[in-house]
Amino acid sequence: MDHPGRQQRLQAALAENKLDWLLVTHLPNIRYLSGFTGSAGALLMGEQRATFFTDGRYITQARAEVSGARIVIARKAPVLAAIELLAASRSRTPQRLGLEPHSVTVGQRDQLAAILPRKWRFVSAPTLIERARMVKDKEEIRRIRAAIQLGAGLFQIARKKIRPGVKEVEVAAAMEYEARQAGAEGMSFSTIIAAGKRSAVVHGRASGARIPRRGFVVCDFGVILAGYCSDRTRTVHVGRSTYGARQMYQAVLEAQQAAIAQVRPEVTAADVDAAARKVLRKHRLARFFSHSTGHGLGLEIHEAPRLAAGQTQELEPGMVITIEPGAYIPGKQGVRIEDVVVVTSTGCEVLTPTDKELIIV
Amino acid sequence: MDHPGRQQRLQAALAENKLDWLLVTHLPNIRYLSGFTGSAGALLMGEQRATFFTDGRYITQARAEVSGARIVIARKAPVLAAIELLAASRSRTPQRLGLEPHSVTVGQRDQLAAILPRKWRFVSAPTLIERARMVKDKEEIRRIRAAIQLGAGLFQIARKKIRPGVKEVEVAAAMEYEARQAGAEGMSFSTIIAAGKRSAVVHGRASGARIPRRGFVVCDFGVILAGYCSDRTRTVHVGRSTYGARQMYQAVLEAQQAAIAQVRPEVTAADVDAAARKVLRKHRLARFFSHSTGHGLGLEIHEAPRLAAGQTQELEPGMVITIEPGAYIPGKQGVRIEDVVVVTSTGCEVLTPTDKELIIV
Repeated sequence: MDHPGRQQRLQAALAENKLDWLLVTHLPNIRYLSGFTGSAGALLMGEQRATFFTDGRYITQARAEVSGARIVIARKAPVLAAIELLAASRSRTPQRLGLEPHSVTVGQRDQLAAILPRKWRFVSAPTLIERARMVKDKEEIRRIRAAIQLGAGLFQIARKKIRPGVKEVEVAAAMEYEARQAGAEGMSFSTIIAAGKRSAVVHGRASGARIPRRGFVVCDFGVILAGYCSDRTRTVHVGRSTYGARQMYQAVLEAQQAAIAQVRPEVTAADVDAAARKVLRKHRLARFFSHSTGHGLGLEIHEAPRLAAGQTQELEPGMVITIEPGAYIPGKQGVRIEDVVVVTSTGCEVLTPTDKELIIV
Repeated sequence: MDHPGRQQRLQAALAENKLDWLLVTHLPNIRYLSGFTGSAGALLMGEQRATFFTDGRYITQARAEVSGARIVIARKAPVLAAIELLAASRSRTPQRLGLEPHSVTVGQRDQLAAILPRKWRFVSAPTLIERARMVKDKEEIRRIRAAIQLGAGLFQIARKKIRPGVKEVEVAAAMEYEARQAGAEGMSFSTIIAAGKRSAVVHGRASGARIPRRGFVVCDFGVILAGYCSDRTRTVHVGRSTYGARQMYQAVLEAQQAAIAQVRPEVTAADVDAAARKVLRKHRLARFFSHSTGHGLGLEIHEAPRLAAGQTQELEPGMVITIEPGAYIPGKQGVRIEDVVVVTSTGCEVLTPTDKELIIV
C-alpha cells in the first residue's frame, strides 16, 4: 500500500483547508494512512510531518506495521499524548487543529481543550480521508476481489447446510469456520441467516431458530481478508414456493438489476437508489423497502458513498459499492439480493459471482 | 431482565443530577435499559417517561425486544428524531439535556445544536448508566457464568489443536466454530492465538503464522452468549520449556494469584493492579507488564472499573472483573493468565475454571 503517497495527498489537502494539523483518530483512517492495524492509536498529521501515537501493548506491532510516520509509545491515551506534544510546541502563532468530528467524542474534546493552550483553535475538519478512501486504488480492488472470492465459497456452504430443521446459527457457524480456515481475519459483520418469517427482519442475525419447511432464507454475510471487506446477500427458498413469493423475488431482482444498470461515472448515489425504488414501486413493494440501496465498502463494511435519496455524491471510477435492494413484509417474508460492484470509466463491473436466479433447496 | 426497574433508578438519578432529559446513545446502555439489541437506536429518558427511537430496519425487532419505553420508528437517524421530538415540545422553561460525552461525537452535537431551540442547554452527563452497570444483578451473573462455561469448552479445543506446524488461525477457527455450534452469538473480541515470538505481542490476533516447535502460545478469547461476554487467557507451552520460561510463567501466575487475593469490597481498583505489579517487580518483570491488570465485563468486553494505577474506584459486591497480568519480552516470549471473578461480600469468587498449571503440549 502506498502509505507515504496517501499522507502526502492529505498534507496537500490540509493547506487547502486552512488546517495546520489534523488529528486522525478514526482507526480505519489511521490504517489507511499508516498501515497500523491495532485498536489504540492516533495519527497527528502536520503539513510537513506525521507522528503516530500508540500505547505499550503495540510496541512490536507498531514498529512492524507503521510506515511514513514517527512512532511514539505513550504511557497514556494516544490522543492525549498527541495533544501534549502540540501543547509543548513553542510556536506563538495561532494554530488550527482539525479534529474528525464523527470520531472525536464530546468528552474527548473537553479533555483536549483542557490541555491545549488558548492560541489553538479546534476545527471540525471536513471528511478529507473518507473522501480519498471512496476511490480505491489497484491494490485495494485486488484485496476486495480476493475477499469477495472467499465469500463466494461460503455461500456454497450455506446452500448445502440450509435444510428444514437446521438452526440458523448452525448455518452461520459452518460458513464462519470455512472463512477462518480460508484465512479470513473475521466476518465483516454479524452473519445474517434469517429464515421463514424472520426473513422479514432486515438485520436478522443468525439465531437459534430452526429453518422451517417452507419459506425464504436471507443469507447476508461478508469476510475481512487482508483488512478489506466483502458483503453479499442471496435469498434462497426452502420447499415449494408460492406464486407470490416468486413474484416478490423477481421484483427485487429486477430492482437490483435496474440499479446496477444505472451505475456509471457522474451519476449520483441518489440516482442509483431511485432506479431500484422505481422498479419496486411498479410492483407495489416500495413501502416494504425500508433501507437504502447500498453503500461503499473497503476497510470498513459501511463507507461513503451512501446510496439513498438526497445523496448528491457523484460516482467515480474506482468506487466500490454494494447494490442491495430488498422487500420485507413484516410477519410474513423478506427478500434481499446484494452484489458488490466497482465503478469503471463506462459503467461498472460486478465483482460478486452473478448467479441470482431463485434457488430452491 | 428488569428493564423498567433500571429505567426508574436512572430517572431518579436524573433529578439528583439536575437533568431534565438524558439522551442515551451508547448501544450497550440502550440494551441495558430497554432490551433492544439492534445497531441503530436512541433512548430519550425523561423524568417521567422513556421513548425509544430506531429506523425502519428494526420495526419488527424493536417491537419484540423493547420494554418500558414508547417506540418511534424514524425516517432519519434515531438521534435526530429524538432531538426533533424535544424541539417540538411547548415547554418555555429552560431545559437541561444530558448527552453521553463518550458516545456523542463532536459532529453529532453540532447537528443537534442546530435543531434544538436556544432555551435548551446541552450538558455532558456523568456516566450514570455505566456506574449502574458495574454492579451486576443475579440474572446478569447467571449469563456471564454461562458464557464463561462455554468459553471453558473452547480452551479444551485449543489444547487439542495446538501442535507445531498448525496455523494460529486454524486454532482460532476450530474454537470459533465450536462457539457458534454451542449457541454463542459471536466472539467477544478477535481471538488471540499468539505463538512463539508472537506471544510477546499483547494483542496478537490469530494470524497465518504456524506454531513453532518450541515456545509459549498465548490463547486469549471470549464469547458472547445471550448478550454477555466471557474473557479468558491461558498460556500453554509447546515442546520442552527452558528454566527461564518456566520461571516467567510462575512469576505471572504468582502475580495473578496475588491480585485475586486482593479482591474484596472497598479495596480500590488501583490496589488490585498494584498487587500484581508488586510480584512482577520482585521477579524483575514489571517493565514487561505493559497493560493494566484487568477490567469489568458484561454487555461489553471492556467496562468499568479499570484495574490500573490511579483508579480510585472501590470494588463492590456484584462487580465482575478480569484479573489478567502478563509479561512480554519483545522478540522473545510472552505469558498472560486471565480469569474472571465476581466480587462477593467477603472477597471474590473465581468464575473461570481454575486449572492454571503450565500445560505442555
